[in-house]
Amino acid sequence: MFSKRYSRLHPYVPGEQPTDRPYIKLNANENPFPPSPRVKHAVSRALEDRSLLARYPDPDSTELRVAIAEFLNNTGGLLSDIPKAKNYLGFKITPDMIFCGNGSDEVLSFVFCTFFDSDRPVILPEFTYSFYPVYCGFYDIPMCPVPLGQDWTLDADRMVSEAQKTQSPVIFANPNAPTGLALTTWEVKHMIEKAPRGQVFVVDEAYTDFSDQTCLPLLAEYDNIIIVRTFSKSLSFAGMRLGFAVASPHLIHALLTSKNSFNHFPVDVITQRAGAAVCEDIPYCERCVKDVIEERNALIAFLKQKGWFVLDSKANFVFAKKEGVAGKEIYGKVKERGILIRHFDTKGIEDFVRITIGTKKQMDALKAALEDI
Amino acid sequence: MFSKRYSRLHPYVPGEQPTDRPYIKLNANENPFPPSPRVKHAVSRALEDRSLLARYPDPDSTELRVAIAEFLNNTGGLLSDIPKAKNYLGFKITPDMIFCGNGSDEVLSFVFCTFFDSDRPVILPEFTYSFYPVYCGFYDIPMCPVPLGQDWTLDADRMVSEAQKTQSPVIFANPNAPTGLALTTWEVKHMIEKAPRGQVFVVDEAYTDFSDQTCLPLLAEYDNIIIVRTFSKSLSFAGMRLGFAVASPHLIHALLTSKNSFNHFPVDVITQRAGAAVCEDIPYCERCVKDVIEERNALIAFLKQKGWFVLDSKANFVFAKKEGVAGKEIYGKVKERGILIRHFDTKGIEDFVRITIGTKKQMDALKAALEDI
Repeated sequence: MFSKRYSRLHPYVPGEQPTDRPYIKLNANENPFPPSPRVKHAVSRALEDRSLLARYPDPDSTELRVAIAEFLNNTGGLLSDIPKAKNYLGFKITPDMIFCGNGSDEVLSFVFCTFFDSDRPVILPEFTYSFYPVYCGFYDIPMCPVPLGQDWTLDADRMVSEAQKTQSPVIFANPNAPTGLALTTWEVKHMIEKAPRGQVFVVDEAYTDFSDQTCLPLLAEYDNIIIVRTFSKSLSFAGMRLGFAVASPHLIHALLTSKNSFNHFPVDVITQRAGAAVCEDIPYCERCVKDVIEERNALIAFLKQKGWFVLDSKANFVFAKKEGVAGKEIYGKVKERGILIRHFDTKGIEDFVRITIGTKKQMDALKAALEDI
Repeated sequence: MFSKRYSRLHPYVPGEQPTDRPYIKLNANENPFPPSPRVKHAVSRALEDRSLLARYPDPDSTELRVAIAEFLNNTGGLLSDIPKAKNYLGFKITPDMIFCGNGSDEVLSFVFCTFFDSDRPVILPEFTYSFYPVYCGFYDIPMCPVPLGQDWTLDADRMVSEAQKTQSPVIFANPNAPTGLALTTWEVKHMIEKAPRGQVFVVDEAYTDFSDQTCLPLLAEYDNIIIVRTFSKSLSFAGMRLGFAVASPHLIHALLTSKNSFNHFPVDVITQRAGAAVCEDIPYCERCVKDVIEERNALIAFLKQKGWFVLDSKANFVFAKKEGVAGKEIYGKVKERGILIRHFDTKGIEDFVRITIGTKKQMDALKAALEDI
């Protein structure tokens, strides 16, 4: 009764959500803070409009795309506390450069569907966001995974030379997952300069608000770059499912065509309104990001002091290991103490654990648990 | 830069949403009434939980599936005012028989992906919900469209004999779109009895709450039937994007596996809560459906009296034509008078218009416009 397609599928395994007891959840890279209080007002206002919920939503998310473009222009594309020039991006992002979907996972799916093909591999890092191989399987796209360097950084040179060899598109997360390490904008510019100009070059910036870099300024120079962003991390919106891509209007037009061929109303009306409201409250979002970065840096210092090997995270999580203790063991002992962190069985990173940054109180509980072990 | 897959796509054309002036919208089969007032309370309560929006939603929509199962059991699977036996369904629908998605369009997409293959055609009516051919194109599934009978009804015998011939799965909407005509449950039982038992048999019941029949009771006898439902029509939820499938647990398990391979959090937390709240307010939903049915029957009588040819709709819309006047002309003249109805250019149905049933006031305005023309 099942399709051949079905037999090829490999379900993605999300961070666990056990319900046997209350846990401090540091396993899904969620934001410990709620979204801007403006969400509540925007949603309440939307609920007052009696006909709104019964009508199909704007299929183009028009107002939301205007709000996102303004948000990027007003923040310079980054929420982290870096010195901000008045015109950091160097150009103005317009709403026709924005494509919205139900979380960046759906946006990524449309990117894979629209730009990657079965006749050439997509170049990606060996360890990166685990949804990329899932989509390759789904769309029957071959992969060329490039090993990370000895220091766990992306091997930019090798990725580009593989892309040149097969005239292939490139995708990676920056900061990367689960390492948390990031290439600088200049390093990415160097890559895209040498990558095939006739193929898309995708940078997944899910975590970039917690770093000090964004590749958005490269949009002014390269019309084959696609930047993917999510509301789930820095904007505290994981429960609402909202992500977007930023690219030149002709690539966005292609994504819209794919969407309209497949599911013509992906973002519901409440999420459209709530997302626009979040974009208007930049000071609140900046404060949340700042707090997370401070706690992250404190955790890195703590772990290093306790003799851990810790990667220099630019994200809202820390990827670390302790010589002589299996990652799985750390995960298990922390879980016994009511705290969930993430461990991957994948060969090559099985020694590590990935810890999402929570509130100060949550991090104090984690540190106490780690001291205890 | 674009994939071959992309070049094959045919975007679906949804009902227009012009913004040049206010219109009475009778072109997208939306419900003229807002959803149950309980939605507002459920969403407000959800917004009080500060951490809810920042956390990923329950990927399995557990509570929503419990609510939907209860809703179906309590209503006997139909909101229309038919005599209801205490145990109309004849068995109990359990939550593991429910699969939820972002609108029934997404549910249908997972059905096509999971059960239909490139090596045999899917049997469907020539005129039916226009998303089926879209998904066939997307998943590269051949189609065997079966012409409707002279009286615009589904040709059940021919569909079944085609299915037997190629050992193929079957899909149709019942009531069908855009005709509004429905097969009885007994006629469908007769079809499934003769259809290949090793292939799924899909009945899209998007509009069934406005009819006097549902195929849900057939689930007790046949483990290859899949019933697809939506919250967008009878439950006034088009803006929120929620649909579901009902089938035997092993088919639902396969749909969940597909979903988890593709997009592991399709229904956001607000929609999960709001959807469950709707399911608890059966009297309100029944009232809305009753009002729509009354207005539909009044419109059918009005049109017949004015000499139109009108199909006997079991849905929340009416499909009709007026001898000697082109459907496009009627559509255009009604639009000039501030009312949107739907016209299809598709050969064979180009004489017809499809009119969504609105409130009494909206239907009076429509009747006045039609008198005027």
